[in-house]
Formats: sequence, structure tokens, C-alpha cells
Amino acid sequence: MKDWIVGIDIGGTNLVVGLVPAEGGAPEALRVRATEPARGPEAVVTDVVRMAREAVREVSAGMDDGEAISVIGVGVGCPGPIDREAGLVIESPNLRWRMYPLRERIEALVDWPVAIDNDANCATYGEWWQGAGKGSSSLIGITLGTGVGGGYILDGRVVHGASGGAGEIGHTTVNVSGRRCACGNEGCVEAYASGPAIAARAREGLANGVQSSLLELVDGDPERITAATVYEAVVDGDPFATEVLTEAARFLGAGIANVINILNPEAVVIMGGVTRAGDHLFKPLKAEVRRRAFKSLVDACSILPAELPETAGVVGAAGVFLAERRDAAL
Amino acid sequence: MKDWIVGIDIGGTNLVVGLVPAEGGAPEALRVRATEPARGPEAVVTDVVRMAREAVREVSAGMDDGEAISVIGVGVGCPGPIDREAGLVIESPNLRWRMYPLRERIEALVDWPVAIDNDANCATYGEWWQGAGKGSSSLIGITLGTGVGGGYILDGRVVHGASGGAGEIGHTTVNVSGRRCACGNEGCVEAYASGPAIAARAREGLANGVQSSLLELVDGDPERITAATVYEAVVDGDPFATEVLTEAARFLGAGIANVINILNPEAVVIMGGVTRAGDHLFKPLKAEVRRRAFKSLVDACSILPAELPETAGVVGAAGVFLAERRDAAL
Repeated sequence: MKDWIVGIDIGGTNLVVGLVPAEGGAPEALRVRATEPARGPEAVVTDVVRMAREAVREVSAGMDDGEAISVIGVGVGCPGPIDREAGLVIESPNLRWRMYPLRERIEALVDWPVAIDNDANCATYGEWWQGAGKGSSSLIGITLGTGVGGGYILDGRVVHGASGGAGEIGHTTVNVSGRRCACGNEGCVEAYASGPAIAARAREGLANGVQSSLLELVDGDPERITAATVYEAVVDGDPFATEVLTEAARFLGAGIANVINILNPEAVVIMGGVTRAGDHLFKPLKAEVRRRAFKSLVDACSILPAELPETAGVVGAAGVFLAERRDAAL
Repeated sequence: MKDWIVGIDIGGTNLVVGLVPAEGGAPEALRVRATEPARGPEAVVTDVVRMAREAVREVSAGMDDGEAISVIGVGVGCPGPIDREAGLVIESPNLRWRMYPLRERIEALVDWPVAIDNDANCATYGEWWQGAGKGSSSLIGITLGTGVGGGYILDGRVVHGASGGAGEIGHTTVNVSGRRCACGNEGCVEAYASGPAIAARAREGLANGVQSSLLELVDGDPERITAATVYEAVVDGDPFATEVLTEAARFLGAGIANVINILNPEAVVIMGGVTRAGDHLFKPLKAEVRRRAFKSLVDACSILPAELPETAGVVGAAGVFLAERRDAAL
């Protein structure tokens, strides 16, 4: 009988739940709903457990013998620093959770063991297990969104660091006296390459009188510009939008060059909506990496767009559960 | 009978050889001589093998039973990127070696198995095995000298990366449009924190008419200023020299903050002559780290001066031999 793991991806915007075969393979019975974090953590936990039960019923119903399937555990990805041993979400600004005992609350409602990890770690693990970085000996994952997150997989394991906080690639300095970042620091990668940073940079240019098709896309209201608007204008061939995205790509490229020089990874996988910009993002990004990192290390590293844009979090959360169980059994 | 490993540290300036107990402990029968790389690699290999034999004889002679001691292998640290599997020094600008089969040439002269690794990896491993970072779960080592090198020890193993080139912390960008580095890039940590960079910065200030006791220390000849001159002037209380060292410490601190945010190490050990500047270096460095890295990650990390300034290379080379043998036996 095939074993399954419930994968749960708790995001600031959406909750995604699915069943992942332990032997690998695409998640089945995927469910998505809005997180609505203002409802508080208990409502979110109730939702994801209900979605998990529905997914198990759906997959069971599709089995030839009609029997219940074998679920061996639950993996959960959640934003913010996580205390994996205690099963706590230490702090998640997007969800407005603090010291929330997520693992215990889920375990109280289900009969399966639960493992939790940071969402960027889970997404990176998903791309390592079944996506763009499949089987690489060392993989850096970078998630581009409201923030810039990251994860590092070495020899099939997430590198968590001394207190579980490794992977904050978005908050590495590439420009000591540069743009102010949400973290309070100056010149972080995130201050240039996050969605809000890209949108802010576009608005600044327009405020300075730059001509651009961007304004038409938002009916003349610069406040409505998002990173997605910028990508759309880039694809339409707008020179200013292209300049904004190129600048973001260069700073991100400098940050990736740093990670390559420090860790010499076999692959770097870029995740998030911005990868839809394709070559408009990857060409200047790779040029900057090549300019800044050692040639032999650049040659040894593939820089790739994610292959599991919708499901890396669910797949990776399930994979992290399996990896924890395997390590505990060692 | 106690087992011993020959540790060999091939530096651009000195060759250091000693015998390290496999169970741990200070190296014995240490020998040091000038490298004189212009003599070519064969002369260097002949020297280190002779020094190793002398060291073995010296330790054997000190044994109560007068018998030959048990030497189980040789570890060698060497500058530059190394192909460990092939036993090659790929390129070492300091030694002017290229594609030199170092392991094979040493093995041809001795009866012991030989392991080779990069010198910064060896020094970091030495500080992890027996020095300032002893027993830490994850350790970053940073060597400050003519260049700025680094190593990363995770769970007792050197992280080598996909092509053996990990650890180039000196060539991470902290200032995208900053000082030109010897590597061709702009704004690398090394462009601010290496010995030559510190000396160059001091000479620039003097050329611009800054008043400083530095000139007296070099009898009025700015060309004779080295990083050591700058530390000497700092200890004497010279304000300009202090400013130069503080600037170097800040850029180094930004680079260390990046590594801490990416890897969340338990310890960072700083190696090299510059650590003699003590608090003049460590205070501004730690302040910059605290300003730039996440508080919880800074709190989880000890930033320490090296404890084995003369012998980390020899101890670490021996340790790397042991680690390779252990991994091969797994």
C-alpha cells in the first residue's frame, strides 16, 4: 500500500493543502483557500485540518479497493522563524502570530505526527525533491515576493543553522549605504528585489516625471502599481519598466553571486511571480552573477526558474516531514 | 599505541610541519622554514617531506620504548582552489603553481596516505577541532592576510561545495560600486579588509595630507606602510590609523553579517595578524554585525579571535586527513 503525507503551506495570502506520495510525485487533491489571517491562528488551523481531511477522503474515494489510504504524517510550512523542536512559530509578521504552538494545535486535531518548518525552507526543499533543483548536491532557493526569502539544501537536508534562522538571503547587504530595507538595515537585497521595492522604485521614477506606459496600466494612479504591473510593462517593451526590473535583477544578482562565492552550490532556484518576467529577469541577473562571482563557481552552478510555482510549498512540507522522520530514525 | 598524523601547512611565506595526535592535542616537533616559492614546487615538496621525517624521528626519540611511532597519514593545506579527488592544486597565485599534482608527489616520497585541502579550510577546521570554535555545530572561519579567505564547517565536516570552491567570503560584495578588488570585482570585503587594502587606505589618507603618527613609524616613507604599521599606530592611539582600521572592520562586519544571515552559524572565528588589534578591530566589527544581521542570529553566534594563530593550519590539515578517512570508511 502506497504511503502518503499531507503537505500544508500556510501563506500570508493563501492556504494550500494536498496529499503527496511518500515515494515522490505530484500532490493530489489540492485545495486552496484564502488565509484571512485576521481571523487568528485557531481558525487557520481548523481550516487546514479540514482541508487535509477532505483531501484524504478524495484520494481514498479514488482508490480501486475503496479503503482508507495510508497517511504517515503531516508537513507544514509557515512564514517566519520557527522553533522546529518545540513546534513553535516564533514570530510571523505576515500572519501576526507570535510564539504560536502550531505543531501541537494541529496534532491535537489529527492522528498523524506533524513536522513544521519555515515556508522558504519548504519551498526550496520541494524544488530540490521534485522540481528544478532535483537531486542536486547543494541547492539555494530564493523566494521573491512581498519579501525575499531563501533556503539552503545540502546533501538532501535543509541547513537550519544554530537557532533555526538560516536562509535570510534577502537580508544580506550588497550596498552598505543603499536603500532602506523593511528590516531597518540599508542596502539589503530585499530593498531592491522584493515586489514592494520594485513597485516603489517604479513610482519614484514616475514622480520624477519619467515617461512610461506603466501609468496607463493603472489608469493613471501610481499607487496601484505593483511588481506585477512592472512585469506587464516590461513584456510590453516599456523602457523605464525594463530599467526598473534590470536594476532589481542586478542587485539580486550581486546577492546570488555572494551566496555562490560562499557556498559554491550546484544550483540556485528562483521562485515567485517575478520569474514570469523570464529573460527580462534572468539575463541581467546572470550577467551580474558572472561579473561578480568566481568563474569556476559560476560555471559549476545552474541558475534556474522554479518548476513547481504553485505546489513547491506543499511538496516541500511533505518532504521535510519525511526528512525529519528519516533523521530521527538514524 | 598512540596514532599520529603529519600536518603540513604550505603558505606563501612559510612552510609549517608538525605531528598531531589523532586523538587531538597540540602538534609536536613543529618545524618552520621559509617557503621561497620561486624555487618551484618540487623543492617545496622535498622540504616538507624532509621536515615531516625529522618530526617523526624527534617524536619517536622521545618515546619511552624508543620504538618508531605509528603515523597513519598526512594532511596538507595549500593556498588556492584544490581538486581534492585528483589531489591537484588547480591554481595558487601566491605560490605560482598551476595544476600541480601535490598529493601524488608527496605520496611518491612517503609510505603514508595523503589528503590535501585548501589552507583556509584547514585553518578553519583546526579552530573547530581544537581552537576557538571547538565543537561548534557550525563554524565560519575567516583568514585575514594578504587576501581574505574563509571556510565553513558544518556538523564536523568542511563544506566544499559543488566544485570544491566554497568559502570565498573575502570576495562577497558589500558595496556594489565600491573599491576595486584584486579579483576584478568592485566592493568585495577583501578590497577593504585585507592587509594590502588597509595599507593602501592609510597611504591614500597621507597622500591627501592627513596628519598621523604613521609616517614616523616608517621613517617618513609611506611606501613602507603595511597593515602591521597601521595596527601599531592604532595601539599608540593615532586617530587616523584608528579610522582606517575601523572602516576595514565595518566592511568586514557587513560581510560577516551576511554570512550570519545566510547560515546562522554558532561561531565565527577571525584568524590572522589583524586580530592582534583586539578590541580596536572587534568592537566596530561586532557593532556593524549587530546593526546588519538579525538579532536572534547575532545572539546565537559567538564572534571570536583565533586560539591557534601559529598552528591552526597544521592541526587542521591533520584533522582534514582524519575526516577524509572517516568519511571514506562510512
